[in-house]
Amino acid sequence: MREQVQSARTDLALEVRETFGEDDVEIRGVVLERDKGKGKGVEISRVIIQDESGARAMGKPIGTYITIEAPGLKESDESFQESISVELAKQLKKLCGNLREKQVLVAGLGNRAATPDALGPLVVDNLFVTRHLIREFGPEFRRKHRLADVSAAAIGVMGQTGMESGEILKGIISQTKPELVIVIDALAARSVERLNTTIQITDTGICPGSGIGNNRQALNKESLGTQVIAIGVPTVVDAATIVGDSLERFLKMQGFSAEETQRFLAEVYRKNQEESIANLFVTPGNIDEAMKQISYTISEALNDCFAG
Amino acid sequence: MREQVQSARTDLALEVRETFGEDDVEIRGVVLERDKGKGKGVEISRVIIQDESGARAMGKPIGTYITIEAPGLKESDESFQESISVELAKQLKKLCGNLREKQVLVAGLGNRAATPDALGPLVVDNLFVTRHLIREFGPEFRRKHRLADVSAAAIGVMGQTGMESGEILKGIISQTKPELVIVIDALAARSVERLNTTIQITDTGICPGSGIGNNRQALNKESLGTQVIAIGVPTVVDAATIVGDSLERFLKMQGFSAEETQRFLAEVYRKNQEESIANLFVTPGNIDEAMKQISYTISEALNDCFAG
Amino acid sequence: MREQVQSARTDLALEVRETFGEDDVEIRGVVLERDKGKGKGVEISRVIIQDESGARAMGKPIGTYITIEAPGLKESDESFQESISVELAKQLKKLCGNLREKQVLVAGLGNRAATPDALGPLVVDNLFVTRHLIREFGPEFRRKHRLADVSAAAIGVMGQTGMESGEILKGIISQTKPELVIVIDALAARSVERLNTTIQITDTGICPGSGIGNNRQALNKESLGTQVIAIGVPTVVDAATIVGDSLERFLKMQGFSAEETQRFLAEVYRKNQEESIANLFVTPGNIDEAMKQISYTISEALNDCFAG
Amino acid sequence: MREQVQSARTDLALEVRETFGEDDVEIRGVVLERDKGKGKGVEISRVIIQDESGARAMGKPIGTYITIEAPGLKESDESFQESISVELAKQLKKLCGNLREKQVLVAGLGNRAATPDALGPLVVDNLFVTRHLIREFGPEFRRKHRLADVSAAAIGVMGQTGMESGEILKGIISQTKPELVIVIDALAARSVERLNTTIQITDTGICPGSGIGNNRQALNKESLGTQVIAIGVPTVVDAATIVGDSLERFLKMQGFSAEETQRFLAEVYRKNQEESIANLFVTPGNIDEAMKQISYTISEALNDCFAG
Repeated sequence: MREQVQSARTDLALEVRETFGEDDVEIRGVVLERDKGKGKGVEISRVIIQDESGARAMGKPIGTYITIEAPGLKESDESFQESISVELAKQLKKLCGNLREKQVLVAGLGNRAATPDALGPLVVDNLFVTRHLIREFGPEFRRKHRLADVSAAAIGVMGQTGMESGEILKGIISQTKPELVIVIDALAARSVERLNTTIQITDTGICPGSGIGNNRQALNKESLGTQVIAIGVPTVVDAATIVGDSLERFLKMQGFSAEETQRFLAEVYRKNQEESIANLFVTPGNIDEAMKQISYTISEALNDCFAG
Repeated sequence: MREQVQSARTDLALEVRETFGEDDVEIRGVVLERDKGKGKGVEISRVIIQDESGARAMGKPIGTYITIEAPGLKESDESFQESISVELAKQLKKLCGNLREKQVLVAGLGNRAATPDALGPLVVDNLFVTRHLIREFGPEFRRKHRLADVSAAAIGVMGQTGMESGEILKGIISQTKPELVIVIDALAARSVERLNTTIQITDTGICPGSGIGNNRQALNKESLGTQVIAIGVPTVVDAATIVGDSLERFLKMQGFSAEETQRFLAEVYRKNQEESIANLFVTPGNIDEAMKQISYTISEALNDCFAG
Repeated sequence: MREQVQSARTDLALEVRETFGEDDVEIRGVVLERDKGKGKGVEISRVIIQDESGARAMGKPIGTYITIEAPGLKESDESFQESISVELAKQLKKLCGNLREKQVLVAGLGNRAATPDALGPLVVDNLFVTRHLIREFGPEFRRKHRLADVSAAAIGVMGQTGMESGEILKGIISQTKPELVIVIDALAARSVERLNTTIQITDTGICPGSGIGNNRQALNKESLGTQVIAIGVPTVVDAATIVGDSLERFLKMQGFSAEETQRFLAEVYRKNQEESIANLFVTPGNIDEAMKQISYTISEALNDCFAG
Repeated sequence: MREQVQSARTDLALEVRETFGEDDVEIRGVVLERDKGKGKGVEISRVIIQDESGARAMGKPIGTYITIEAPGLKESDESFQESISVELAKQLKKLCGNLREKQVLVAGLGNRAATPDALGPLVVDNLFVTRHLIREFGPEFRRKHRLADVSAAAIGVMGQTGMESGEILKGIISQTKPELVIVIDALAARSVERLNTTIQITDTGICPGSGIGNNRQALNKESLGTQVIAIGVPTVVDAATIVGDSLERFLKMQGFSAEETQRFLAEVYRKNQEESIANLFVTPGNIDEAMKQISYTISEALNDCFAG
């Protein structure tokens, strides 16, 4: 089992799985299931990391990672958006049960002022919150309208708040005591094909870094004391990743061996880190429009799970 | 001492004071001081409510209310903005002492998506936060650069979050333990001349409603457990207030007695509440530009108090 | 026939008509028809000014003014928005014929940076333009997809461009030679009930000022050399108008005669002009959300007329 | 003289010049001058294409291309921004003479809704336009305040307007007859170091494509009938360019000959065009903040040239 290329950063469990080769390659402690979803071209994958052995191999914590791939997610065809929204709601219900009976806090992570990072705040802007209404009109009102108890907050980023997302979330949770926290965040992908076309839902929360060990910035059941579901969409690819992938293709084309290729890649990554390519991100030209579209689709799926 | 007109809503202590007549009218427990500020046309007033008797008369809690009136606040003359910013920093230091030695949380209240209510979020956007840097680089870094320990958050409004501002603030405070909370909020004024031209600073925090008794939504030392300074700028006038003022002028002009005038006004207010005029606000046409300008001036004053 | 109160500013022909009293009051040269529209509470009015005598009485040019009143226009109920959009498309087709066979330029007037004035730019943002596609793929492409030849521009305001809207429009028309110009603009109403609930469509174009005589700033067939349809939504009420209406109600209540009332009103208006109430506008608190909603409804109606 | 690599897209004459090697390599018909500018690290280059031979070699039309390189342009240090603004104003005056005596139209190109393309509209938003004031208050007013006659328009992009920028510009020019048109546009660079750190000013206008021959979309004296100055800032790098540069470095490192390198690169570019990397752009994470900053610096330079 070859080492995954460390520098090719991705937040998608599915992409990590793909670095190990075809679907029939077996990884101990990791299950991969694929399915057709509703709507044209929609595909559902489910990566289940079952134990510590799988977690080590994948570099991600134990849990379930559902990926909805929908090439049309970034397009403005309303009927298509609606079918993705329905699929997302269905997958969420599978993972969390009936949300209408829960008290839920939705937390939008990310920087509202940086377009590809604004997914979380934009989703929160469109949510129909009910907690204050239920507190005003009572449980009868809630039963009658069959509403989840929903609160929501755009958490901001550390560079703007001076606080870690986890600190703010823990504070809000201590006051409002939700049963479930849903965090929404923009992700990084390895492949440009997945930009703005993929939604990942996971019951592991969010674990920056390797996801194992470093729990300081993790947003999960362990750190927050509440069940955490994370919904993310890859909106950027690291520029270094694109360079590496292109080079890898080229080297294979030229007949280099796998070892040589890895050695060259490592060298190029090292050089790129020293140069200004670090901290550059690749996004499609229409990212502003795409973010509006995708955030709306996600918020509609949530609103649908929460009410009616 | 005549009753103040209940329906003429204002958040400015200075305007409440003015309903009692000229400066030389004495109100027990209330002191009014006036001063020239730096910069063309800048005037400083200080209303000090000293005891319960003053609080009852004014309908506002005991404390100090500083008003900076600066007709040029809404204009885009940079040098003028700077002089207001300097004046605001000076008044803040008078009220709070040396902020560079404090751990401060700045909370922007209000709705980012509703222009005249976006003052708080806009101020927070421009702040230079340091808490995360100090935690990373240590107290030596802080001493060297003479920095306050600053964190900041845009709190959102209940219709968007489902939570009261106080709940979110209390949660954040419980995690980050600031010594001082500065809340920024858009206010309502009684007089259109004060729109976007006035800054009120008070050590009483924010007390929606009468400010006495109803502590459920108050953001003050009592409710938050931390010293609270509030900075506000009136950005709207209640449409009903404008109608009332205009009518009052007219009735006086016609020789009606004070009692008759009050009786008529009460009647008109009652009618207006029933009609659609309730929930309408009066703003100048250039409110978007004015909010950008004013929020920048306030954030610069805070940045100046916090660093350097 | 009494004089209309000059200072109560409205851009709605229907409101001017109402100043003359009930529907059965006859005005020479002016016809008023009322109808039910599709959708809950939707009402259609049609004011037709037939000749110079009607134009003088109404202070508006000869032509047809259709008003769609829909209390739900400002609400976010999608199905309701859709029914208004359908009604608007129907009325437009009645007035202009089959738009799919026309070459149309849509011009968004108003200031994008001032929320209640941003209707025009927001509508233009959501239009599906086709002119460049038809020029690239030819008339066959157009026939196949049954498309209007649509171009669109947000014209800006004189304070931002230094140019009159008419100058920019004339320039664009001279280059692109559309057969029909549709201008979109925010309007002023007299009554707060009509704010964000009313759409006016007229074949007279836009005539600032009295609309008769002063043709310098008019955007109409005479000034632009092309048929002009104007679509507008009242988004503000002059603060002076609200004061006047309130006072008028009060004076009637007190038993003042019509003449006395008019005399008092004129006096109050004169005073208000001198004071800072001039240039203040009354808008609902949720104007940002309402503008998003309404502009989308109008652009969908236009897209529907243009394609499919 | 080797062929420049066609696929490495750049709008900067300086970068094209650099593909020919060091400064002392001579290209017939092309002059390169370098200078220190005001402010820390600011450098001025001047590429002068003197004749058809130089134009062919460079793939850009005859004219002067001034580049201001200022690593701090993207930073928020106000004093530094000011010194760049002063330098830009100085270079503009050198190229155009005293702008205060001219009638100038500033045209902001680009898509307001796509952050890295919004430079033009953002600059226009901050300009102080005077044309309408001069028309209202007369030439005496202009002389007294020593003002240029300035108008400005954000032109939009073809996908939003259905019209070419040149059509709209020609139309506006035909109505308002400016003596000079200044177009502002976001550019593509070849090198990530130049992103948001470089301003190019040229008297050739804007020539999409090779710039020679294809005059259909050019915005220059020939197409518009008026002198045209273009100001641009590179805000994106083509993702394919980054891949190519990285690969080129790698191949050189591996000792491949120049010919082999070029052959491989051409192959990789061809592959990339077929794959999804086309239409991807590389931008820094803080592009939203950077655009605000840079557009303000440019508009201040223009305001300074136009008034006072």
